[in-house]
Amino acid sequence: MSYRIRKAKSSDAKQILSLITELAVFEKEPESVELSAADLKASGFGEFPDFECFVAEKGDKIVGIAIIYMRFSTWKGRTLHLEDLIVSESLRGQGVGTALLNKVIIYGSKIGVKRISWEVLNWNTDAINFYKSKGAIVKSDWNVVHLDEKGIKNYLLKFK
Amino acid sequence: MSYRIRKAKSSDAKQILSLITELAVFEKEPESVELSAADLKASGFGEFPDFECFVAEKGDKIVGIAIIYMRFSTWKGRTLHLEDLIVSESLRGQGVGTALLNKVIIYGSKIGVKRISWEVLNWNTDAINFYKSKGAIVKSDWNVVHLDEKGIKNYLLKFK
Repeated sequence: MSYRIRKAKSSDAKQILSLITELAVFEKEPESVELSAADLKASGFGEFPDFECFVAEKGDKIVGIAIIYMRFSTWKGRTLHLEDLIVSESLRGQGVGTALLNKVIIYGSKIGVKRISWEVLNWNTDAINFYKSKGAIVKSDWNVVHLDEKGIKNYLLKFK
Repeated sequence: MSYRIRKAKSSDAKQILSLITELAVFEKEPESVELSAADLKASGFGEFPDFECFVAEKGDKIVGIAIIYMRFSTWKGRTLHLEDLIVSESLRGQGVGTALLNKVIIYGSKIGVKRISWEVLNWNTDAINFYKSKGAIVKSDWNVVHLDEKGIKNYLLKFK
């Protein structure tokens, strides 16, 4: 399959959102996607973007995305976080995910980050095996904690 | 106990690092702290800081810290990440952690983030129970994945 990896443009927002939604369906939370294509445009393609995005493009169709932003470790310093690595389901197993991950690792290395991090569902064994084969460490002793929008409101009502 | 919560200043860097190191010892990774106080100063107190920090100060001693930075959820939008919430061991159980967490939640609410996230070790039941009592959701189905500095180098040697 012929495709190219490039930085995302503002006009890709609709197709990017479509892949984000595809992943949310796979992760059994289709109703969780609250962002619109306009939100994505505003967040990712203004003067101070909240994230950067690489896309895999086949013809005029975006078949994969990698969304990244900076984080900070108080042990190591600046790190890069891979928020989403998504390949359209019908095109998996053809090296698109690897090509996008390569781009992210090369980028992280060039800007000198001390770590690249991401999160994976513990039942997604295909993804876990893929990441392990690349040398990543899956840290099953750390749990992710969320206080969502409703939780923030409740917290302030109860404890402030 | 009398203490006050305030934003950290550059001159706090040494005491902040001392608390970071104290937590690393508790988390059984004392050798993992690679940052110096000078690194912290440069990262956190320049024109474009990598993080923000609140401190709890008792007299002239910093007894607790909360270190935060922005992240981005492709489902929700801008989120706030709590990288470290640390209270010096001898002063735990006196409300310092709660006061710092309150400050972080109020801050997140004021800037309108859609979620506040953090990570917790799965054997740290005191912390887990504390967070749950505040309405946070501990997501044990998500694993944290790290490709560390050595992993990045090896990746590029093998797969590029």
